[in-house]
Amino acid sequence: MKRVLVATGGGDCPGLNAVIRGIVKRASQEKGWEIIGSRDAYNGLLSDPMELIPLDNKTVSGIHVRGGTIIGTTNKGGPFAYPIKQPDGTWKAVDRSDEMIKRLQELNIEAIISIGGDGSQRISQKLFEKGVNIVGVPKTIDNDLSATDFTFGFQTAVQIATESFDRLVTTAESHHRIMIMEVMGRDAGWIALHTAIAGGAEVCLIPEIPYDIQKVAARLNERFQNGRGFAHVVVAEGAKPKEGTIVARKSDEIGYENVRLGGIALQLSAQLKQVGVQADIRETILGHTQRGGTPIAFDRVLATMFGVKAFEMVLNREYGKMVAYRNNTVVSVSLTEATGKYNHVKPDSYLIHAARGVGICFGD
Amino acid sequence: MKRVLVATGGGDCPGLNAVIRGIVKRASQEKGWEIIGSRDAYNGLLSDPMELIPLDNKTVSGIHVRGGTIIGTTNKGGPFAYPIKQPDGTWKAVDRSDEMIKRLQELNIEAIISIGGDGSQRISQKLFEKGVNIVGVPKTIDNDLSATDFTFGFQTAVQIATESFDRLVTTAESHHRIMIMEVMGRDAGWIALHTAIAGGAEVCLIPEIPYDIQKVAARLNERFQNGRGFAHVVVAEGAKPKEGTIVARKSDEIGYENVRLGGIALQLSAQLKQVGVQADIRETILGHTQRGGTPIAFDRVLATMFGVKAFEMVLNREYGKMVAYRNNTVVSVSLTEATGKYNHVKPDSYLIHAARGVGICFGD
Amino acid sequence: MKRVLVATGGGDCPGLNAVIRGIVKRASQEKGWEIIGSRDAYNGLLSDPMELIPLDNKTVSGIHVRGGTIIGTTNKGGPFAYPIKQPDGTWKAVDRSDEMIKRLQELNIEAIISIGGDGSQRISQKLFEKGVNIVGVPKTIDNDLSATDFTFGFQTAVQIATESFDRLVTTAESHHRIMIMEVMGRDAGWIALHTAIAGGAEVCLIPEIPYDIQKVAARLNERFQNGRGFAHVVVAEGAKPKEGTIVARKSDEIGYENVRLGGIALQLSAQLKQVGVQADIRETILGHTQRGGTPIAFDRVLATMFGVKAFEMVLNREYGKMVAYRNNTVVSVSLTEATGKYNHVKPDSYLIHAARGVGICFGD
Amino acid sequence: MKRVLVATGGGDCPGLNAVIRGIVKRASQEKGWEIIGSRDAYNGLLSDPMELIPLDNKTVSGIHVRGGTIIGTTNKGGPFAYPIKQPDGTWKAVDRSDEMIKRLQELNIEAIISIGGDGSQRISQKLFEKGVNIVGVPKTIDNDLSATDFTFGFQTAVQIATESFDRLVTTAESHHRIMIMEVMGRDAGWIALHTAIAGGAEVCLIPEIPYDIQKVAARLNERFQNGRGFAHVVVAEGAKPKEGTIVARKSDEIGYENVRLGGIALQLSAQLKQVGVQADIRETILGHTQRGGTPIAFDRVLATMFGVKAFEMVLNREYGKMVAYRNNTVVSVSLTEATGKYNHVKPDSYLIHAARGVGICFGD
Repeated sequence: MKRVLVATGGGDCPGLNAVIRGIVKRASQEKGWEIIGSRDAYNGLLSDPMELIPLDNKTVSGIHVRGGTIIGTTNKGGPFAYPIKQPDGTWKAVDRSDEMIKRLQELNIEAIISIGGDGSQRISQKLFEKGVNIVGVPKTIDNDLSATDFTFGFQTAVQIATESFDRLVTTAESHHRIMIMEVMGRDAGWIALHTAIAGGAEVCLIPEIPYDIQKVAARLNERFQNGRGFAHVVVAEGAKPKEGTIVARKSDEIGYENVRLGGIALQLSAQLKQVGVQADIRETILGHTQRGGTPIAFDRVLATMFGVKAFEMVLNREYGKMVAYRNNTVVSVSLTEATGKYNHVKPDSYLIHAARGVGICFGD
Repeated sequence: MKRVLVATGGGDCPGLNAVIRGIVKRASQEKGWEIIGSRDAYNGLLSDPMELIPLDNKTVSGIHVRGGTIIGTTNKGGPFAYPIKQPDGTWKAVDRSDEMIKRLQELNIEAIISIGGDGSQRISQKLFEKGVNIVGVPKTIDNDLSATDFTFGFQTAVQIATESFDRLVTTAESHHRIMIMEVMGRDAGWIALHTAIAGGAEVCLIPEIPYDIQKVAARLNERFQNGRGFAHVVVAEGAKPKEGTIVARKSDEIGYENVRLGGIALQLSAQLKQVGVQADIRETILGHTQRGGTPIAFDRVLATMFGVKAFEMVLNREYGKMVAYRNNTVVSVSLTEATGKYNHVKPDSYLIHAARGVGICFGD
Repeated sequence: MKRVLVATGGGDCPGLNAVIRGIVKRASQEKGWEIIGSRDAYNGLLSDPMELIPLDNKTVSGIHVRGGTIIGTTNKGGPFAYPIKQPDGTWKAVDRSDEMIKRLQELNIEAIISIGGDGSQRISQKLFEKGVNIVGVPKTIDNDLSATDFTFGFQTAVQIATESFDRLVTTAESHHRIMIMEVMGRDAGWIALHTAIAGGAEVCLIPEIPYDIQKVAARLNERFQNGRGFAHVVVAEGAKPKEGTIVARKSDEIGYENVRLGGIALQLSAQLKQVGVQADIRETILGHTQRGGTPIAFDRVLATMFGVKAFEMVLNREYGKMVAYRNNTVVSVSLTEATGKYNHVKPDSYLIHAARGVGICFGD
Repeated sequence: MKRVLVATGGGDCPGLNAVIRGIVKRASQEKGWEIIGSRDAYNGLLSDPMELIPLDNKTVSGIHVRGGTIIGTTNKGGPFAYPIKQPDGTWKAVDRSDEMIKRLQELNIEAIISIGGDGSQRISQKLFEKGVNIVGVPKTIDNDLSATDFTFGFQTAVQIATESFDRLVTTAESHHRIMIMEVMGRDAGWIALHTAIAGGAEVCLIPEIPYDIQKVAARLNERFQNGRGFAHVVVAEGAKPKEGTIVARKSDEIGYENVRLGGIALQLSAQLKQVGVQADIRETILGHTQRGGTPIAFDRVLATMFGVKAFEMVLNREYGKMVAYRNNTVVSVSLTEATGKYNHVKPDSYLIHAARGVGICFGD
């Protein structure tokens, strides 16, 4: 009996369970393979006692419609920086990769399938360099991996954000307001850009095109002067002004520790008022509603293909590689290529051009 | 030709357009009636030039599926406190009700149908006392009017909040987090309570049951100690602690004027950490996404009945009254009764009892 | 340890799982109670070996968002007509109620909670008369039980049908067609009526108001002559013409046995053409999509209250009774009352009046 | 002032309005251009009087969220086969292309943008050969055009079908049934294949892989024998058996003229019973609900890009060409290439391979 260990790492993402189901279903068609999940990324393998979850066709039945991951995830720890409590009560990050490899051998694990973002895949590469048979599956709602044309979870995030945008439109129209909606995306503007086009925003601010607050204000005021009494701004959480820095998040000043204060939407709102935008402004921060719940069909299909492919890469011993979607089919790419380059929105892409074509202002 | 003026006032609410359509469609079955909308509550009638919108079957075709209101709304102004710019540049609220009545006569308006919350209906009562033929239609997503068993828009708000809750569940489970979700409701806990039951929350904080932060923390810690690595808190925007006051919204301190800072979810999160809750906490503030967009079928049916009834009350000259839904049918109640009593959640109701029955903690 | 047996019978209905969860969660707050599910209504109890499912807080975690029932259901069999294969190969319905009662005693079952429609509750009444401690919970998407103001599942069915209606509208408009949509409801027109109002149909045919096909055709032709190039008809599966009978379902004639042929929408379409409606007609039969999937928040709240109440009726030994929702609260009614009267749409209700008020034609 | 005529032809498709909006918004950024819609494909141009619809930024405001097409569509007529009533009352298809070209000149139309499927684009090619400046935009929910990687509307159709599938799952599970769901797709199996993977079907029947009914029955019976008491079949409307022909649609036999009888799902159900499948079977025919209503974000983004590109092709005088999406960007291809090859599912594609990998049986 050959065993494959599956782990999901980093922020959760709609489609993770469809990948797991794809792996398990495909493996069940081969004789002599067993799939085991490690709870909460590699922590299930590294903890004492270990928390391992046997995965068979019954366990994965129907999970593809559920968000999250049935084997848990975390963005803390990992084999190279495992948190150990010190005698003095503080925590220290310790390299436990050798211990992990020892456990893999004891458990008779043939290979690992690691489903995760660029952080996780960098760990995959390091494990591979230490001799571990490993296959990566890309995961990010932010679409920020350049090795693959699409990642699952992204279209679901865009869909959720667009449905929220649609709901805000009727309030904006009825009350003649400016609605600012903040979406996720880390250092990339993909979710914001797609949502702004799909929803029909007037302004879209993304990290790749630093904005001039005066130009944003001018666009909004022009819209109101033309008698259209409402406007919508979609802002990526990583959006940046051209000059100066965004007003810092001063959570300490008012006594909140480790609490995120308001977000970029709130700060943008304040800036717009300072530079003379007169209209009523309301802010919405979508937050975690974007990354949970039932994946849309597009992401389920993509994630299922990724899961099937990942197991077949194990069958073919294509280790040190990651599943990718390119030119309408599923392929494998090397892990070094996969994690080498961040996928930013290209300011000269047709997508940006089309956005400008329907009148979206990027503040540049 | 007899004319009826329709106005929508206060915050927008899914179902407003279905009411307008109900009025217009029903009126078109009688000979000699004309329906006119006043833009942005009564401001369309009071501005110079006036902004009046003729409403016929064609205008209202298909509008019942849209959120917001096609005739606009505002929560500023009104005949008894109309803002007038003074020579020194400041604004002053002026009583223009006599001017409004004069314009109604000049326009040959037989009656007004005013769709709005308790603020709007208090204005309706004052106009009625001054001799205006007026019929009220209750409107609030907060379900806080005691004269009617249901108001349209409320079930849509609960549905949207519940769908967001469902999305947060998968992240909470996968990451072993506490998710705090803040919903609307003003001084009533209806939206929070329904969402907490529908979603399956562990904690629900509402204005009607002041909470003890220690008890909330105890419930959450107990949940984690029992090995259930996640929990959900639904908090109404009006929720209040038993003792002391909630940490004030210090938007001024960090230089944001008129900008709402974070909200109760953020403050609750900080409080929970202070009293010893260890788990990761994430906050989501649903905000305006709750009050826009396509109304669910329940609200469209209710709003349509309200619209038809409102016009029939004009036909029957039942003025000074408001449409209401009671004991499964539509009736009329006096405006004084309608605005006399705020509809709070009753702590001894079966709904609260059932919520406790499925383990929901109110922090009392 | 006292045991309660839970069974779900008849067609599935969104909210069943929320009832089960309500029972189990409430029971877990009392010492010494155990909840057991019988698979597929009473068949799990009657089969050999028995199929019983222990239900605790862990089993019911998160099930309230899922359609269907985790303990299975059936509309065949039951203790008074259990199918037994005869030596000659045929099946015979046998009374096994005494055997069932014996098994309940052997298993030390204190009481039964039976979740089901009028058929199931008639069985409940017969078991009660034979001395079984039994509590009923009403279940029907058709809203056809007169003992309760609402049943869970109904608003979900209406919502699904309305969303489908909304999708058909754009095709109807763009192609200038008549769209006929058939919905469920058995002998009652509730789903059809609510959907027709919520969607904005021109024609609605329900069992309670037999239709004249000529009048339906006249209304549709008038609509086209007025230059509105599309129309929508919502028809209940139980709709009946005033005179004559509906064209029979001739599945046998073309060699299909036990296969439902087309449905009323198809036949209505043919009739309309025969009496001179010129426009393109398209039919949609929603079928089982109406009764599955995630229940809307309204139904989850109602079902949760029903579950909590049902267990409390066991606690209070209120046997021979059924949970009901009346005048905005949850009460208990006797099983005889509960099954005594079918809940038809009243042709003189305000709901019908309002439907006519927005121009809906019932063909009478 | 240069004029562009826009027409939408063939079956409606979610995203049509987003294309129209993209064209109009982009055109408004250039000086001296005017966009005019022809009602119901070219019929608005060919009828007397003509029905032309001026399109400006105000007209297209907010239309991208609506299904259908604001300028109407038809799958009848066209310049080369325009139906003319003959003196004897019959209809005859007449070539009116010269008349159409004359009208274009009289109206001073610079170019046409024709949004339509392969039928419409073959007409585009013929008009182009007669000297008309024409640009095509591909439109099909069926994804059956080989010149473009994606067409808008397809992912919306898949999403709607998948949501319906999800709803059927809970009934299948609770009642231990086989659910057959028929989806659209004409002669291609794209919608069926994507829905089967996204939903998690056991069987998927598509035109590209003719099925053996015995093998389908064997797969279903095996599933039941393995103790999984339910199964799902997704069948494309164009699915074909390997041998023999599918039972004909005998609408005439039972007196229905021009009425579609039941569809393939119904016939498949009958066939399965004939070859020995024992379980309860229920059929659902999604029909037109798949092609209407709000497009998902993916399709709105794609359609917006297509609209912007189409107008820019007019600006650049790239006539005789069609917009296409290839390798993640928007390009133009010749109309002859665009209509030359039908886009079938490739039986050796990775998508089919992955579907088999999760256990989907195609009956081959």
